[in-house]
Amino acid sequence: MQFTAQDISLLLNGTVEGDGAVTVHQLAKIEEGTEGSLSFLANPKYEQYLYTTNASVVIVNNDLQLTAPVKATLIRVENAYSAFSVLLEQYNTFKLNKKGIEQPCFIHPSAQIGTDLYIGAFAYIGQDAKIGNNCKIYPNVNISDNVTIGDNVTLFSGVTIYFDCVIGNNVIIHSGAVIGSDGFGFAPNPDGSYTKVAQIGNVILEDDVEVGSNTTIDRATMGSTIIRKGVKLDNLIQIAHNVEIGANTVIAAQTGISGSTKVGENVIMGGQVGLVGHITIANRSQFQAQSGVSRSVTEEGKKWAGTPAVPYNANMRSNVVISRLPELEKRINELEKIIQELKKGSQ
Amino acid sequence: MQFTAQDISLLLNGTVEGDGAVTVHQLAKIEEGTEGSLSFLANPKYEQYLYTTNASVVIVNNDLQLTAPVKATLIRVENAYSAFSVLLEQYNTFKLNKKGIEQPCFIHPSAQIGTDLYIGAFAYIGQDAKIGNNCKIYPNVNISDNVTIGDNVTLFSGVTIYFDCVIGNNVIIHSGAVIGSDGFGFAPNPDGSYTKVAQIGNVILEDDVEVGSNTTIDRATMGSTIIRKGVKLDNLIQIAHNVEIGANTVIAAQTGISGSTKVGENVIMGGQVGLVGHITIANRSQFQAQSGVSRSVTEEGKKWAGTPAVPYNANMRSNVVISRLPELEKRINELEKIIQELKKGSQ
Amino acid sequence: MQFTAQDISLLLNGTVEGDGAVTVHQLAKIEEGTEGSLSFLANPKYEQYLYTTNASVVIVNNDLQLTAPVKATLIRVENAYSAFSVLLEQYNTFKLNKKGIEQPCFIHPSAQIGTDLYIGAFAYIGQDAKIGNNCKIYPNVNISDNVTIGDNVTLFSGVTIYFDCVIGNNVIIHSGAVIGSDGFGFAPNPDGSYTKVAQIGNVILEDDVEVGSNTTIDRATMGSTIIRKGVKLDNLIQIAHNVEIGANTVIAAQTGISGSTKVGENVIMGGQVGLVGHITIANRSQFQAQSGVSRSVTEEGKKWAGTPAVPYNANMRSNVVISRLPELEKRINELEKIIQELKKGSQ
Repeated sequence: MQFTAQDISLLLNGTVEGDGAVTVHQLAKIEEGTEGSLSFLANPKYEQYLYTTNASVVIVNNDLQLTAPVKATLIRVENAYSAFSVLLEQYNTFKLNKKGIEQPCFIHPSAQIGTDLYIGAFAYIGQDAKIGNNCKIYPNVNISDNVTIGDNVTLFSGVTIYFDCVIGNNVIIHSGAVIGSDGFGFAPNPDGSYTKVAQIGNVILEDDVEVGSNTTIDRATMGSTIIRKGVKLDNLIQIAHNVEIGANTVIAAQTGISGSTKVGENVIMGGQVGLVGHITIANRSQFQAQSGVSRSVTEEGKKWAGTPAVPYNANMRSNVVISRLPELEKRINELEKIIQELKKGSQ
Repeated sequence: MQFTAQDISLLLNGTVEGDGAVTVHQLAKIEEGTEGSLSFLANPKYEQYLYTTNASVVIVNNDLQLTAPVKATLIRVENAYSAFSVLLEQYNTFKLNKKGIEQPCFIHPSAQIGTDLYIGAFAYIGQDAKIGNNCKIYPNVNISDNVTIGDNVTLFSGVTIYFDCVIGNNVIIHSGAVIGSDGFGFAPNPDGSYTKVAQIGNVILEDDVEVGSNTTIDRATMGSTIIRKGVKLDNLIQIAHNVEIGANTVIAAQTGISGSTKVGENVIMGGQVGLVGHITIANRSQFQAQSGVSRSVTEEGKKWAGTPAVPYNANMRSNVVISRLPELEKRINELEKIIQELKKGSQ
Repeated sequence: MQFTAQDISLLLNGTVEGDGAVTVHQLAKIEEGTEGSLSFLANPKYEQYLYTTNASVVIVNNDLQLTAPVKATLIRVENAYSAFSVLLEQYNTFKLNKKGIEQPCFIHPSAQIGTDLYIGAFAYIGQDAKIGNNCKIYPNVNISDNVTIGDNVTLFSGVTIYFDCVIGNNVIIHSGAVIGSDGFGFAPNPDGSYTKVAQIGNVILEDDVEVGSNTTIDRATMGSTIIRKGVKLDNLIQIAHNVEIGANTVIAAQTGISGSTKVGENVIMGGQVGLVGHITIANRSQFQAQSGVSRSVTEEGKKWAGTPAVPYNANMRSNVVISRLPELEKRINELEKIIQELKKGSQ
């Protein structure tokens, strides 16, 4: 796709300064702009780049005053940042606006599928599965038997959803994520071997959830593992069986949450955090990356860090002393020597 | 599938109390039971729910004495828990009892496949591969050339098994797991670049192994990476080249084991544990989540924790003092001041 | 494939000692050699195995002097280790030397594909994708629209490459790796929910990069996430949006690098390391496994360890004292008691 500065200016209700016929075909940061790219200047800190950029078109604020000649065509708008965000969103929608059903794919005759779908080649839709409208099912996606999927859902290549799971509206799941694999449950036998405990529950992802690539969410033993509305999960996260994650909680990559733990709403977790099973985390808690959380958190809105996790400031203070420990030990040795001498002296 | 209370009672050799014609179509915990669901009461702690549940049928012990009216139909049996386990297992077997070969799939003409198989659409079975009887190969599974697979094996969607690997009987591998990718071996060159060391070994999974979703097990440089009988691996685990894991060892999610390390039998590891390479871990060792294990463990049956891992109790004690470190430092400062004064006084 | 000792000796320009007609069909370590296998002896430490091995053929150095009878046929060469490496490399090349296009696969009519390719069944090549010569695209690989791939690239089963990404020459990507999924970017709304920030950049892998199985590399918000020439990434690694990793850096499994961080050249990271976002790591830095790196590293060639990461030796020294903390606390208690008494005495 290729647009002229004039086309874009019309779309944004802006004013062209320079050659309106110049064309662009991609978006770029102003400091990385090359010929044929469209950029923007919102933060005055970056104004210097306006005079050196090779971008062909730059969106700027109406009130910007130039202090040197500019090579690029300018489009002046009320708010350059939000104007550019609009374009970025539209660009992405355009990129991802696939439609139609590619062959060969596998759609079980009993499956119910909506309208305006994209179904990629080698996608699999199982028995009694239900898929809403306007969904995008990329190639090699596996939707097992009796799965229910809402409207406007995007499943990128290689996503697997095990049988009986339920996916809400506007959900995005990235490649390789696995929804509904068996919880990790085994009963020990007297001879040291284990017998598998059947995992017959499912996973429910509510509306507006996003799941990162290669993240795994296990089905409940019975009942449901539940990811509430608006939760955002990064890549390579492990969510164990019977976990529940409250609305609008955001979790960074490689974090793991053990079985039956309940995480509150609007919680924020850094990467590589670990939570033990069967605990409860209060709303608006925050956990620093690599924290190891071994107890429930009952007070809302606190920051935690370290393994085992303690209040953030306490962790910071302990870490400072840890770095001085060898020196502290020497000071204790020294004190003991002096005291020996003092004791001798006082005898 | 739908059953009457009478059907289920016959199957369990029980006695119906109430309407034997009522039907159920799913299993549920007693506190989550809805109309049409079958539940059980084994633990007296949950007896309260028996009088409020909406489950249509509840399995109870013969000796249970009711203390209030019950809406659900009861089935009395000798042992409600084990009776329910039987149903749960049967339910799961029914759910997963797929048969037949879906098209299109790819089966190399030289591959040998057993009887009573399920092979999903878009599954790939390579040259000279051998697959036993009663296996379930879900859609988009990749079985590369010369792989050998035993009987009663289940490979969920998107599993990849690289060439030459060997899978025993009754193995379950969850979606996205990768068996036999190259070990991470590179020889440094004088210019700072690396040359790949060819990884020509394989991976062997013995009988009764279960592998979680998106777990990765690398092939040996030469010889075999071996996962012994009955080992259970959770999701997102990394097993490096030439590792050997002893029988009935259980490892939780996101743990990583580095190259050539030998783990004993009946070991238990929590999540996010890391082991360095070329060490040996004694039988029945236990490692707390997030431990970092940098040395061999020679004594059997001990618990370990922390980074670097130390005996569990020692780690607990150190953690307690770490939380008091800022206070300890102040006490040392105080002691030094007092001693300065005492020294002045004694001079 | 099967070769005689004589065949191999000719290839290696060696001398046969014993039965030149004996055949071998696999490679093995000398201590694990079975009939039909070819092994080597380079390290004198292993010479004992030469007299007990069941390998049919063993490659040895010209100057080796036997001290007991040997059952195996020997092939004498100038340097047994490098001779065996040559065979190992050839063996692997042979194993992986697939050619041709299996059906069904999906190649968009607009895609440009090179010569001497292997394209496995159920592989997907999207609109306007470009693939060089001599590439191996295993089954169920997903190459999305507008992806560019160089020559001699190997993509194992189940790899996904999102639209617009660029892959250099001689790149190897293992199964389940995801290149180009969305960066984890969300703008908070006043009601606690989040709005997705469109991620319109891409990922660039330069020449000679190897990516392990189930590793995830996110596309940039704008611009590119860049993995420079010769970088080797192990399994289950997370690389966030807009990260840049310098040439010949090697990273072990399960490490995570947060958004916009720039890692230098020839850096070495152990497994399960975490780096926060927006920092810079100097060339030739080394990080011990499980380190948590929260600040930029400006000095080149230093070793780091711990969370938060500190110089390696300082971490070692602190860890030693941590193990003695309970004892140290007792010593402080003791000092305080003595001093109380001394103070009383001096009053």
